[in-house]
Amino acid sequence: MTLRIGVIGTGAIGRDHARRINHVLGGAKIVALSDVNKASAEAVKKDIAPDAVIYDTGEALIAASDVDAVLVTSWGATHEQYVLAAIAAGKPCFCEKPLATTAEGARRIVDAEVEHGKRLVQVGFMRRYDSGYVALKQAVDTRIGAPIIVHAAHRNPAVPEQYVTPMAIHDTLIHEIDVFRWLLDDDYISARVLFPRSAARSHAKLKDPQIVILETARGTIINVEVFVNCHYGYDIQCEVVGEDGIARLPEPMAIQMRLGAKLQNDILTDWKDRFIASYDVELQDFIHAAAKGTASGPTSWDGYVAAITSDACVTAQEKEGQAVAINLPTRPALYN
Amino acid sequence: MTLRIGVIGTGAIGRDHARRINHVLGGAKIVALSDVNKASAEAVKKDIAPDAVIYDTGEALIAASDVDAVLVTSWGATHEQYVLAAIAAGKPCFCEKPLATTAEGARRIVDAEVEHGKRLVQVGFMRRYDSGYVALKQAVDTRIGAPIIVHAAHRNPAVPEQYVTPMAIHDTLIHEIDVFRWLLDDDYISARVLFPRSAARSHAKLKDPQIVILETARGTIINVEVFVNCHYGYDIQCEVVGEDGIARLPEPMAIQMRLGAKLQNDILTDWKDRFIASYDVELQDFIHAAAKGTASGPTSWDGYVAAITSDACVTAQEKEGQAVAINLPTRPALYN
Amino acid sequence: MTLRIGVIGTGAIGRDHARRINHVLGGAKIVALSDVNKASAEAVKKDIAPDAVIYDTGEALIAASDVDAVLVTSWGATHEQYVLAAIAAGKPCFCEKPLATTAEGARRIVDAEVEHGKRLVQVGFMRRYDSGYVALKQAVDTRIGAPIIVHAAHRNPAVPEQYVTPMAIHDTLIHEIDVFRWLLDDDYISARVLFPRSAARSHAKLKDPQIVILETARGTIINVEVFVNCHYGYDIQCEVVGEDGIARLPEPMAIQMRLGAKLQNDILTDWKDRFIASYDVELQDFIHAAAKGTASGPTSWDGYVAAITSDACVTAQEKEGQAVAINLPTRPALYN
Amino acid sequence: MTLRIGVIGTGAIGRDHARRINHVLGGAKIVALSDVNKASAEAVKKDIAPDAVIYDTGEALIAASDVDAVLVTSWGATHEQYVLAAIAAGKPCFCEKPLATTAEGARRIVDAEVEHGKRLVQVGFMRRYDSGYVALKQAVDTRIGAPIIVHAAHRNPAVPEQYVTPMAIHDTLIHEIDVFRWLLDDDYISARVLFPRSAARSHAKLKDPQIVILETARGTIINVEVFVNCHYGYDIQCEVVGEDGIARLPEPMAIQMRLGAKLQNDILTDWKDRFIASYDVELQDFIHAAAKGTASGPTSWDGYVAAITSDACVTAQEKEGQAVAINLPTRPALYN
Repeated sequence: MTLRIGVIGTGAIGRDHARRINHVLGGAKIVALSDVNKASAEAVKKDIAPDAVIYDTGEALIAASDVDAVLVTSWGATHEQYVLAAIAAGKPCFCEKPLATTAEGARRIVDAEVEHGKRLVQVGFMRRYDSGYVALKQAVDTRIGAPIIVHAAHRNPAVPEQYVTPMAIHDTLIHEIDVFRWLLDDDYISARVLFPRSAARSHAKLKDPQIVILETARGTIINVEVFVNCHYGYDIQCEVVGEDGIARLPEPMAIQMRLGAKLQNDILTDWKDRFIASYDVELQDFIHAAAKGTASGPTSWDGYVAAITSDACVTAQEKEGQAVAINLPTRPALYN
Repeated sequence: MTLRIGVIGTGAIGRDHARRINHVLGGAKIVALSDVNKASAEAVKKDIAPDAVIYDTGEALIAASDVDAVLVTSWGATHEQYVLAAIAAGKPCFCEKPLATTAEGARRIVDAEVEHGKRLVQVGFMRRYDSGYVALKQAVDTRIGAPIIVHAAHRNPAVPEQYVTPMAIHDTLIHEIDVFRWLLDDDYISARVLFPRSAARSHAKLKDPQIVILETARGTIINVEVFVNCHYGYDIQCEVVGEDGIARLPEPMAIQMRLGAKLQNDILTDWKDRFIASYDVELQDFIHAAAKGTASGPTSWDGYVAAITSDACVTAQEKEGQAVAINLPTRPALYN
Repeated sequence: MTLRIGVIGTGAIGRDHARRINHVLGGAKIVALSDVNKASAEAVKKDIAPDAVIYDTGEALIAASDVDAVLVTSWGATHEQYVLAAIAAGKPCFCEKPLATTAEGARRIVDAEVEHGKRLVQVGFMRRYDSGYVALKQAVDTRIGAPIIVHAAHRNPAVPEQYVTPMAIHDTLIHEIDVFRWLLDDDYISARVLFPRSAARSHAKLKDPQIVILETARGTIINVEVFVNCHYGYDIQCEVVGEDGIARLPEPMAIQMRLGAKLQNDILTDWKDRFIASYDVELQDFIHAAAKGTASGPTSWDGYVAAITSDACVTAQEKEGQAVAINLPTRPALYN
Repeated sequence: MTLRIGVIGTGAIGRDHARRINHVLGGAKIVALSDVNKASAEAVKKDIAPDAVIYDTGEALIAASDVDAVLVTSWGATHEQYVLAAIAAGKPCFCEKPLATTAEGARRIVDAEVEHGKRLVQVGFMRRYDSGYVALKQAVDTRIGAPIIVHAAHRNPAVPEQYVTPMAIHDTLIHEIDVFRWLLDDDYISARVLFPRSAARSHAKLKDPQIVILETARGTIINVEVFVNCHYGYDIQCEVVGEDGIARLPEPMAIQMRLGAKLQNDILTDWKDRFIASYDVELQDFIHAAAKGTASGPTSWDGYVAAITSDACVTAQEKEGQAVAINLPTRPALYN
């Protein structure tokens, strides 16, 4: 049986997911498209999904009887309404980050899904599907003893002037916020932010780099350097110090060259090159679960906790150096 | 349009390719199966391809009107007849190694395809699809200047007693024989084999390790250590020395750990773990080309040249230390 | 001219320095020895320095007319008195860590040397002479742009039960405290300590690991993991994030092996193996300067600042998570 | 007791060894100098060894009663006569490469030393003192099982036009010829040379690169790439394949940087930077042995075998591809 998928939001990421489903992955096809910009949906139909029907609204697409599952890849502010509609229709739904633009919105989704009684939502935290993190998690779980400290870094070559200090949390650290909960199987209890002097390449409204320190319920301390104007490349680092030893995220595969008095390999400069393969794996996982009428991978609860944690980190930016408590509500049984 | 594929030979590799096509890749499905052991074909139908029809013979499968393309994954001695039948039927055909068990057999396939006038055959040299070799080829083509020397190694942890000296060529070096022609875009003109003392873990009928030295038409010298009882792991190494610098095949991705006074990472011990991902890429490439009625990737000519070169290497084993000439016929225009 | 050196304190480090001077380095010889345990001094005379005269007291040794320069390698509590006596005698003096057991004591040495008007004292911070740190400093000064963040770690396999929480500062972090001031050519303005849960291998009176965060006058933030029961080895790490890129302290030279399905190299387990070569370089530097009647390398002022900073870090341990200000007095011109 | 050394030949290497002895190492001093160019000897006296006496001839220097030991660092063609004179005088003698310019000359030295009945000569094969090779030898002896294959490379950035094909053996491979006998504790039985096409940067009278293949008495095969116009750096590689695993010579220590989309470290470009530290160790070893009236390290026999092997390799260049036998005379008991 081929899973019939409708895509709401056919911008860059929606278009790329449509291509992935129709041309790369097995078990699904795109049957429906919708976008506020109808021309965008028509272009995807023409180029990628000629058999798809175009709907005027996301709600109409969700309601269509031949749509088995939904991808929400529209503008962030609209995610909540479409995910809620998909839950109401009982259809599996893959939602790109963020699940909602506020913690309250994410909570409403959690509540709706809990009331529905079965998982339907997968949030697009693709790092959990990256082969490097998967291997790191295995090492953390089986080789190095219980984790005590995590040293990490999230570095981008440059960001535009519109990128302001809180975006280092909402747009950048958000990936670490989710992946470390999963990696450590633990929850955060506090956040703290330290600012060294800003880099000369930073902008007037951006303190960059910053060091975010998260503490978990089991007492692990995570320090993450977020440096979005690091200039030299896109570089994701993570080292976990455990009771018995240390495990480190692998560098991306690269050809080592001896050239011009340098032993060298290229560093990536575009985040897409780093994580592109994990999008395939995450969507294949969605297709497999949705074919059984449910969802797998990152949950609504994960999206909700990410929102709460992000808010605490932004508060911690404002209270530089002080620990800001993170108090999570009780986790519903659906997510255990 | 979904490409309808028939599989001739449902042993380990045939079964795995069927799974790949039905569950992992996009654009194709298994509609036909055949095996001398009918129970094997039935098991694949039951587990992987419930809609497939089982045929008594490969020829009947090839003739079936709803079979668009054929996978030949049967016993090596039968490859030639099925590939010739597929060409006769004008159907794209993926054939696992070897294309034929003799150079003459491979030549008959080349001749049939040339007469047909269009490429239909892809040979299963999957290393050309490995991301490491693809990156290495890019570095060789664009970064290090024209290649002059290649240092390589093909190491297996252990082989059984039935593995005798010539199998180091036919079963093991065969991969290097193909991949270096592609990597260097060059042809061989001679082969030479040197034997150091054999390892204590080797067997009575196997000289192991051995060093195979190939020379190309452009004057590049390739030395390959073949060591099939190296004990420590499955390890594929390749370093290309060019006019301006050196490029080296990446190590497989692994988590680096600091543990027990060792900075360490696991080395693979099973060849399947090393090249499993390249099988997906090679078959996807086959599906894309077959959907257009043709073939891509390694050609019948490549299979034929590999057979000629293997024969020369085995002669070189017998004439230890002497250079054995490799005289290739003119390449048909179809393969330029 | 051969520099005539007297050694006060012939325990392990004093004996080793005597061997170094008489058997490894050029330009100096041991002419005088003194130790509260006279048998220890006699053993060094017998084994290493047969021509040396043994003195009853350090003061008598310093006063001897044929002693050109002094090594103070006695028990830490006695350092101050001997260094002051050497300054009073106008003789160059190499003093092992700590310069004095209190900041006040170190200040008295600074004042005496300033009054003397010329440098006479070198403190035994040998990391400044380690070839790895020297190369790192060169990269920081010339390759990666101005430093913004330092990530570091100081890990020991294990410590005995007597090692309590403040010793992680006084005995362990003390090396980083000195070397980062030199590496960054900057001064500290605050210290902060964070404690994750302690490792199972730690002891009742030791919180281990800990994270020490130092801030410098120019706004660089340094975070150092101090983990003295890390079990897997003796491991010193340092990564400097600059405006243009990142430089990392090299791993100690080690043979990489492929063995037992591991790509591996040994990690050191003894700190002496890591820094033994730098002792040669530091003492050779002392000999060269002392031959000219002065001192080079780490100054009394450096020893004093290290003492002040250590005290602030211990306070920061007590005020977990809070920043403790480090207010340095004005640096005397002698040390510019 | 301070060893009194006379230096015959005060060109670049003689001058540097004089500096080493007077300023870096312990236990010796320069008391005598001699050079065909007297001004050169006087410059060394002035700059480095003010107390040295200058002699008109090497023979006069050797005969001087206050000269305990001799360094022969003169023009290669004169080595034999001075070493023979030192043996005749019963004085320990360090001789730079080559021991003699012909195998016959080296044999005369061996015979003279054997007749003298005690080792007096150390040949300047400094690689045996390099910390990397020392560590590699330890790994070969104790970790990876008996050696079977060695893969090696000796690469220089560039050579001048006067450097012709046989110099790749006499001036370049000579280091590998000695160090692999020591590393493997084995002797050569044949040599073979293969020439790929020459690099565009090579010269009319130089085939470059070349591959030299040596076979040992125990059946180990060594292949060495010699590439003296490799352009990218000075690079010495060595990998030993043993029964149980593989050990590799470490890369020289270097700071790894992330800079300009490259993960990179500098490669050396000058051979002196690679082996400078081993000169200190080799001369210190000479001083220690000479102080006892004998010699240590590489022997006259080693110098003689190197000469025989070099000659065989040059013959092998002329007989491209053919194995040239290396027949060594019986080793005198003095060298066991």
